[in-house]
Amino acid sequence: MAFHESGHAIVAESVEHADPVHKITIIPRGIAALGYTQQQPTEDRYLMTKSELLDRMAVLLGGRVAEEVIFGEISTGAQNDLQRATDMARSMVTEYGMSERLGLVTYERERRPMFLPDSLGPSKIYSEEKAAEIDEEISMVVEECHQRVRRILGEKREVLNTLAKLLLEKEVVQGDEMRALMGKSSPAPPALPAGPKADLPPQQPAA
Amino acid sequence: MAFHESGHAIVAESVEHADPVHKITIIPRGIAALGYTQQQPTEDRYLMTKSELLDRMAVLLGGRVAEEVIFGEISTGAQNDLQRATDMARSMVTEYGMSERLGLVTYERERRPMFLPDSLGPSKIYSEEKAAEIDEEISMVVEECHQRVRRILGEKREVLNTLAKLLLEKEVVQGDEMRALMGKSSPAPPALPAGPKADLPPQQPAA
Amino acid sequence: MAFHESGHAIVAESVEHADPVHKITIIPRGIAALGYTQQQPTEDRYLMTKSELLDRMAVLLGGRVAEEVIFGEISTGAQNDLQRATDMARSMVTEYGMSERLGLVTYERERRPMFLPDSLGPSKIYSEEKAAEIDEEISMVVEECHQRVRRILGEKREVLNTLAKLLLEKEVVQGDEMRALMGKSSPAPPALPAGPKADLPPQQPAA
Amino acid sequence: MAFHESGHAIVAESVEHADPVHKITIIPRGIAALGYTQQQPTEDRYLMTKSELLDRMAVLLGGRVAEEVIFGEISTGAQNDLQRATDMARSMVTEYGMSERLGLVTYERERRPMFLPDSLGPSKIYSEEKAAEIDEEISMVVEECHQRVRRILGEKREVLNTLAKLLLEKEVVQGDEMRALMGKSSPAPPALPAGPKADLPPQQPAA
Amino acid sequence: MAFHESGHAIVAESVEHADPVHKITIIPRGIAALGYTQQQPTEDRYLMTKSELLDRMAVLLGGRVAEEVIFGEISTGAQNDLQRATDMARSMVTEYGMSERLGLVTYERERRPMFLPDSLGPSKIYSEEKAAEIDEEISMVVEECHQRVRRILGEKREVLNTLAKLLLEKEVVQGDEMRALMGKSSPAPPALPAGPKADLPPQQPAA
Amino acid sequence: MAFHESGHAIVAESVEHADPVHKITIIPRGIAALGYTQQQPTEDRYLMTKSELLDRMAVLLGGRVAEEVIFGEISTGAQNDLQRATDMARSMVTEYGMSERLGLVTYERERRPMFLPDSLGPSKIYSEEKAAEIDEEISMVVEECHQRVRRILGEKREVLNTLAKLLLEKEVVQGDEMRALMGKSSPAPPALPAGPKADLPPQQPAA
Repeated sequence: MAFHESGHAIVAESVEHADPVHKITIIPRGIAALGYTQQQPTEDRYLMTKSELLDRMAVLLGGRVAEEVIFGEISTGAQNDLQRATDMARSMVTEYGMSERLGLVTYERERRPMFLPDSLGPSKIYSEEKAAEIDEEISMVVEECHQRVRRILGEKREVLNTLAKLLLEKEVVQGDEMRALMGKSSPAPPALPAGPKADLPPQQPAA
Repeated sequence: MAFHESGHAIVAESVEHADPVHKITIIPRGIAALGYTQQQPTEDRYLMTKSELLDRMAVLLGGRVAEEVIFGEISTGAQNDLQRATDMARSMVTEYGMSERLGLVTYERERRPMFLPDSLGPSKIYSEEKAAEIDEEISMVVEECHQRVRRILGEKREVLNTLAKLLLEKEVVQGDEMRALMGKSSPAPPALPAGPKADLPPQQPAA
Repeated sequence: MAFHESGHAIVAESVEHADPVHKITIIPRGIAALGYTQQQPTEDRYLMTKSELLDRMAVLLGGRVAEEVIFGEISTGAQNDLQRATDMARSMVTEYGMSERLGLVTYERERRPMFLPDSLGPSKIYSEEKAAEIDEEISMVVEECHQRVRRILGEKREVLNTLAKLLLEKEVVQGDEMRALMGKSSPAPPALPAGPKADLPPQQPAA
Repeated sequence: MAFHESGHAIVAESVEHADPVHKITIIPRGIAALGYTQQQPTEDRYLMTKSELLDRMAVLLGGRVAEEVIFGEISTGAQNDLQRATDMARSMVTEYGMSERLGLVTYERERRPMFLPDSLGPSKIYSEEKAAEIDEEISMVVEECHQRVRRILGEKREVLNTLAKLLLEKEVVQGDEMRALMGKSSPAPPALPAGPKADLPPQQPAA
Repeated sequence: MAFHESGHAIVAESVEHADPVHKITIIPRGIAALGYTQQQPTEDRYLMTKSELLDRMAVLLGGRVAEEVIFGEISTGAQNDLQRATDMARSMVTEYGMSERLGLVTYERERRPMFLPDSLGPSKIYSEEKAAEIDEEISMVVEECHQRVRRILGEKREVLNTLAKLLLEKEVVQGDEMRALMGKSSPAPPALPAGPKADLPPQQPAA
Repeated sequence: MAFHESGHAIVAESVEHADPVHKITIIPRGIAALGYTQQQPTEDRYLMTKSELLDRMAVLLGGRVAEEVIFGEISTGAQNDLQRATDMARSMVTEYGMSERLGLVTYERERRPMFLPDSLGPSKIYSEEKAAEIDEEISMVVEECHQRVRRILGEKREVLNTLAKLLLEKEVVQGDEMRALMGKSSPAPPALPAGPKADLPPQQPAA
């Protein structure tokens, strides 16, 4: 678990759009205390750009890829992360018009019956052919993200080893300690983001 | 968001059949105050021609395309617009007989059980083959609209920049100010529409 | 709407098996006052022959085709007509054994659960392959009807123009006025129909 | 309707396994008074052989084919007959193992939930490929029956004309009158059937 | 029916793993009094080997094949037998891992919602391709069994004729009489079965 | 049953990641007393590695393969084992990202409606094409496991014979007796596992 958590944290510090890591811990339930705000619901109230979504997916895959890189052996622990990354990829392709191949057409419906679970038939009104195209796009988005995270953690294998060892010893590692290991300075207090997000309210860093 | 809203407004002033823009604002919930009446339900009580439907779709895509044109980066903010544009394209193809390829046959049913949500199986009674044809038509209608809006906003890139800047400064821009930027005079009070709509009640401009 | 209604009426007077037109009106709800009894439920209590069904479909498509012929622009107003024509074509193919290609086999079930809406899965017990054949037949039946109505209204373009103009002026046109425009005498009082319907009760002309 | 009923009756007298015709009538609801016991439920309490099933199907198609043979025009009146013939063909293929191509495997389930309508998904547990094979077999069985009935009524076209005329005049024709027209003697009182049915209780002729 | 029942009984005495026939009767409801225990539920409480399952299927098909062999005419009477044989073949292929082609993977789920009938969608979570493979295997298993029973009854055609005649005369034939006809001695009282079933409780012969 | 249970036990002692066998018994319900903790729910609270999952699958298939190896005859007794092994293979492929071919994308959803059984449509939102790929992967994973267990029990055929004989005689065999037969020493008390599981709580051996 130490490597798994270290993987999440290192990726979070390596991509552009993730919130800074506050604390890493392997004390049970500690996973929720990661700097990266895993509690944030997938249906964001705020706008997110395609780059931000891709960075979040990378952080989610970080835990699993750390296991691959270090042990060549993988565990069931990443199930929830993989599911959330898949859901994000699906939304990019079917709701946000972020796949060039599928275009601006949406393939999911917003309106849901209030009192009926969505497992009651996913209300699929497109053809099998389109469904297969959607599957291919989702697989491609996730696989590209997978390769990107392998590159990130492959280059930072030393840090990953050191951080995991530290975590096994101390059970809790502060974000600043970790950034020191990576040769990064601590983050400045959050500034107003630039560019397309110029008129968005700033995102709250995790507690 | 300033660019997104400016995109909607500029397209609305550039196509033939959209209502004139009354006011643009980026004050939260401001989107509903756009001249273009986004509140109008998709099931119109009045007749609409194919050209009117295509113009409405163009206004809907205007926000997303503005992001593409200016930032080369896209956000999740257009989700609802894309969904509504997709729904319009689907209705044109499956309910209004407006696709030459599919012909006058309808593929959706009007009658819906009152007390059961439509996610309970979309009551699809046509084949997979037809479903794939329908998907292709919808994709084509939306993609043609996408290209049309790219042309409109590509030609008006300067106005888009100026308008968005103005909107960031002042938060609200009146329709007349905007038309001045575009070198257009203000609209005459609504006259009785000519041609095929000759015997339709006039559409109410948004408040 | 004047052209749309005129289209329905002219086709009704041009085919063999439609009831004579009593009155045409563009006063709202006027559509129900057409000589052709649009209120008659699709599940007729009386037998209808294949020719009668095809004539009814032609009257239904008359409104939409009038728009095509006169304006080259089409509206959403024909949605309900298209849906009913599609339903008739579907019944001919799947319930009445009127398609040579599909033969005498039926593909719809009469018995429906009383308390469950038919959207709960259309109880389709045939294969995708058969569903695609059915779709093709329905499309063909509707398209042939479309072409037939285009020929009828193309030949009567003058009458269509005159009748619509008259309707815009006077809002109501009597069946006899209309038949005069078409150079037809008024219909004799309904006689017992000949041929295959010899032992059917006579159909009631609309009020 | 006179021709339709005459068609049923003539086929019933022409095949080996149908009950003798008691009376034909075109007085409304008269159809239930035909010698052929149309009231008998499809789920027979007694065994039926394949030949008996095929003869029943022929009687069902008799009405529709009479219209084809005499008028070359067909009506919606055969809908219920076609449906029942289709149901019989389906049972032969999917429940009784009477199709050589499909073999002895059954494709329908006997056990049905008591309180849920069978339209709730036909509980199909076989593949699309098998469903297409089943459709082909059913179409073939019905089409062969169609051709057989055309031959029967084609050869008896004179009787069909005479009988229908008589029926239009008198509204009721007794079975014996009809058999006289066909040059047949009246049936002997029912004897114990021979052959495979040797140990079956005799079928009750319709009242 | 005499031939049908004789077919069941002769096959039961000809295969290795069926219980000895106690009594055959054609008195109504007599079918339940056959030596072969048809009441035994398909979901056995005890283990059954593949050979035992195949022998049971053979007994089930015995009635139908007797009709084929003797009359060349088949009846609806075997419907229930065919259904049960199909169910057994399906279980062998999808639940017991007894098809080499499908392997040890199972394709049916044990856990069923308590209060919902299984017709509510068979909860099929495999692909169409796999469904087609399963159908082929089931057809093959049943067809091989069909051929096997044809061979058995073809060789014992004389006994089948004699036994059915006896049954028509006397309505009841004891198992020992029947075995005498077949040139077999009566069965010894049940001994502990040998081999793989060594530790199973002995099966109860039917009363 | 003696061979079936011996198969489970020998495989459990032959793979790396299974808990040591405590006791084997063929007294009814004895199966639950095997050292291998069959009661442990499939949704583990603890992480499991891919190797551990594969070893568990091997133990599950051990009973069935013992029948194959010794008798060349198979029984229905393995139904539950096969089902559980299939479920594990399915989870590996669709939830844990453990198939290289399918990648890190997940194809099952965690969230289930509380009050609706999962048979209500498996909420499949992927295409038929992907479903076929998933089926192939599951078949491959199970078949590889099958071959592995055949190798294990083929090499230990002597032990399997001896152990089953012992079990038939004594009805209960202790884990230590069995390990002595296999020439293995008894297991040391459980130590902290090494490697990827370093920070997991130790698994409880079955009582």
